[in-house]
Amino acid sequence: MKKYDKLVTNAVGREVPTIINGEEHIPFKGVGKHIPTGRKHAPRIASCANYPSDGNKTVVSLKEALIKSGLKDGMTISTHHHFRNGDLIANQIFDLAHELGVKNLRWYPSASFPCQEKLIEYLEDGTINRIEGSMNGPLGRFTSEGKMKGTAILRSHGGRYQAVQDGEVQIDIAVIAAPSADPFGNANGEDGPAACGLLGFALGDSQYADKVIIVTDNLVPFPCIPWQIHGNYVDYVVVVEQVGIPEKIISGTTRITKSPDRLLIAELTSKFCDEAGIIKDGFSYQAGAGGTALSIGIYFSEILRNRGWKARFIRAGSNKYPVEMLEEGLVDYILDGQTFDLDGVRSMRENSGHVNTSPFTSYNYHGKGNFAGMVDVVILGATEVDVNFNANVVTHSDGLMLHGVGGWQNCLFSKCTILPIPLFRDRIPVIKDEVTTICGPGELIDVIATERGIAINPRRKDLIEKLKGSNLPIKTIEELKEEAEKICGIPEKPQLSDEIVAVIKWVDGTVIDSVRKVL
Amino acid sequence: MKKYDKLVTNAVGREVPTIINGEEHIPFKGVGKHIPTGRKHAPRIASCANYPSDGNKTVVSLKEALIKSGLKDGMTISTHHHFRNGDLIANQIFDLAHELGVKNLRWYPSASFPCQEKLIEYLEDGTINRIEGSMNGPLGRFTSEGKMKGTAILRSHGGRYQAVQDGEVQIDIAVIAAPSADPFGNANGEDGPAACGLLGFALGDSQYADKVIIVTDNLVPFPCIPWQIHGNYVDYVVVVEQVGIPEKIISGTTRITKSPDRLLIAELTSKFCDEAGIIKDGFSYQAGAGGTALSIGIYFSEILRNRGWKARFIRAGSNKYPVEMLEEGLVDYILDGQTFDLDGVRSMRENSGHVNTSPFTSYNYHGKGNFAGMVDVVILGATEVDVNFNANVVTHSDGLMLHGVGGWQNCLFSKCTILPIPLFRDRIPVIKDEVTTICGPGELIDVIATERGIAINPRRKDLIEKLKGSNLPIKTIEELKEEAEKICGIPEKPQLSDEIVAVIKWVDGTVIDSVRKVL
Repeated sequence: MKKYDKLVTNAVGREVPTIINGEEHIPFKGVGKHIPTGRKHAPRIASCANYPSDGNKTVVSLKEALIKSGLKDGMTISTHHHFRNGDLIANQIFDLAHELGVKNLRWYPSASFPCQEKLIEYLEDGTINRIEGSMNGPLGRFTSEGKMKGTAILRSHGGRYQAVQDGEVQIDIAVIAAPSADPFGNANGEDGPAACGLLGFALGDSQYADKVIIVTDNLVPFPCIPWQIHGNYVDYVVVVEQVGIPEKIISGTTRITKSPDRLLIAELTSKFCDEAGIIKDGFSYQAGAGGTALSIGIYFSEILRNRGWKARFIRAGSNKYPVEMLEEGLVDYILDGQTFDLDGVRSMRENSGHVNTSPFTSYNYHGKGNFAGMVDVVILGATEVDVNFNANVVTHSDGLMLHGVGGWQNCLFSKCTILPIPLFRDRIPVIKDEVTTICGPGELIDVIATERGIAINPRRKDLIEKLKGSNLPIKTIEELKEEAEKICGIPEKPQLSDEIVAVIKWVDGTVIDSVRKVL
Repeated sequence: MKKYDKLVTNAVGREVPTIINGEEHIPFKGVGKHIPTGRKHAPRIASCANYPSDGNKTVVSLKEALIKSGLKDGMTISTHHHFRNGDLIANQIFDLAHELGVKNLRWYPSASFPCQEKLIEYLEDGTINRIEGSMNGPLGRFTSEGKMKGTAILRSHGGRYQAVQDGEVQIDIAVIAAPSADPFGNANGEDGPAACGLLGFALGDSQYADKVIIVTDNLVPFPCIPWQIHGNYVDYVVVVEQVGIPEKIISGTTRITKSPDRLLIAELTSKFCDEAGIIKDGFSYQAGAGGTALSIGIYFSEILRNRGWKARFIRAGSNKYPVEMLEEGLVDYILDGQTFDLDGVRSMRENSGHVNTSPFTSYNYHGKGNFAGMVDVVILGATEVDVNFNANVVTHSDGLMLHGVGGWQNCLFSKCTILPIPLFRDRIPVIKDEVTTICGPGELIDVIATERGIAINPRRKDLIEKLKGSNLPIKTIEELKEEAEKICGIPEKPQLSDEIVAVIKWVDGTVIDSVRKVL
């Protein structure tokens, strides 16, 4: 099987394959231009007659569960990444697959992390054909170097749900690591020694996979409350000694920045939001877990506090900062997609206003709407931006693919998308003529905020109008680019081969760009 | 179109049609014998591109929402019955359909009540072809008299979800009356002036219907928390003055019995459960809202209190009695399917241990298990029982169909099913040679408890063994029947025509019995 075939140029001018790993895919047509006509994936109808009448679905080991689930060559195995770099289950699954001599698997994680670097051996020996999912770090590098047998497909969190819902990716076996579960398979992420907060990334897997295995280290008597995952979708429950390392859900990026430049960017961004009239009583925002984004959250909370206002909701990735705001009464609700620290986990357990969400509610573009469009302002990162406001979030300027798409693409549908970014990193300008990989089309990116000025997308005449007469350093994106190039020089293009190692999906399942092998 | 065709004799010896309203149906094959092989109903894939980007789905009226949903002849319209006899929306829907000249609709309520008697005019004039759903009171009588154009199909709560999930009933438009909702369509039953508790009966409708309309009298800013119904499934939101009369969720059957005979039955039942070892620390039960069942709950709570035990969960239909147990700490959880009084509503709002469930979690036989089998003992009613323990819950001994199936069939899968019933009603014996309508096969009914003795199903050798030497009046069912007939005489058979007016579905979608027109 060819890894990919039939290249065409898509609506953002990128060359993308239309056959990937032997399956047909649609090139990106423009935002909102691809309207699906089919029906959702229809899982098999089950029968209670085939399940234990007392509801006890426990089996003795993950190995037995995989065998009972019919694990065989070519299957698709899914996992979630709520434990982030503290996951202990994915490696075990493929150890077992290898032990059982199973080959050519597709691994469909919601994201992968350095803790899964071990899987490189199985990617090399053919146990795993390819990863379809975000790859943070070593697995991304391995892929960039052209070493993966199949072609990687990266999807946003919402795109991952969409692909499962639409039947584009049919999961044979979903393995769901759960900090708390009952023998029937009801499960949550809130309780137990490995509590990681929530399990929303596994929701679609549970609903649509052929077989669903819950792995837990905290088996409670039925009913496990809350049931973030419904046991009615679950085939087997496995008890293990430890299901994940919750301390490792804390990523290095969840500390507030101390860099003066980044603090300045945060301040400029907040002032911009204020002058643009975005911050008001009842407003909503989403800020990631990066240092700059956290600082922006602090500015927002100060404005709310000083003016006696209250935000209606914060979309999160939660950690202690939004939790403090919730507990101080500065916001009604945290709508949380994944917890980034143990304060987030605690709050989710304790605060009824800390609500668990999923890619289905928040991000699925093939739903009857989703939450993303209702957020007043979203603060996102980017590795590169171009003069047309197209942005990259997966590859670095050297072409290495070291990050996943996450919820980034989905968030672009907010009422205002701001990318607060430094003008250069390691003396490499961030604003380019052309980004290495287009992850988000410029038409959805409204503002670029740097330490030396703020560029508003010319499409947002309303924002330009509102900021007229502002003391903020409003510039064109070309001016910002020139300024950076004056300091750093014009950056070199990355050294890439023609070979495609990965594609990036848009939120509607179309292919927005290809990632090339690094030389 | 013939109303029904091709009668065959099913596994419980009843003559049932295999073509009903022009569609094929499968005769009952025996408990656990029909294993489905197909796939679930696959709803159309939606796209955010077709929904308001700001998430505001409100339209000015129910009429506009129905027109936008494409209401036309022959469609299936669903509603839920959480307001029970206080529903205000179903009549409006068909008033509008009539006004718009739409004909031949199938109404698919989760149950109908006397407050919807007005719909008889639309059943007569052809606006509505038939009701598929439980019919309590006047609509049941209308059907029994052979006046409905189509053939009625009655399903249990679980069977209703199963039929929707499996695509047997494809809902064109689901209209969901919601005590609280936001403009995106997130909705719950807990809050607002018409709070009725939960919306679980509408869950499957929201997931699988082509178009979903939320009707509310309490529009809150996004997000409406908790979202028992996900806005991601919703097309339109309509605000009306009053969505339902919450006081009318209280049914006359939610008062503890004062009848000495029924109190005796309750006492015998409780003692039986105790002697059989069913009541213990951590046990679970479900008792309906009938007077006898409530009294049994009181006995259970006294046993728990006296022995320092705690039940793990009560499956409910909640009202103030289980709520008092929860608040006293006699039970960890109420797993609630519908609230029967305003104490239930309040508790659902206030107590984290009062958990909302749905026919999907609790009753769907075509899931990977459901909750029904995990309940230690369930207390149910019946209009008739026969000497083989088959029971009837929909027709009276005169043949009139005046009740729905509800969750009754689904509950039969508990570890022990007890029917506490009086030996006779209005001097008509309840135990017959043959029930008028078989709703539940005798093999699933374990114990009949009457004021003059308790009969254990001969299949339950374990229970017979445990009760050996008991002082309780253990008798055979034949003995009980003879005793009643000695007092009341042998009852007359109901006067029925050959014409079938309704069929009763089993939990797996097969047809267990037919209901004949009364003469």
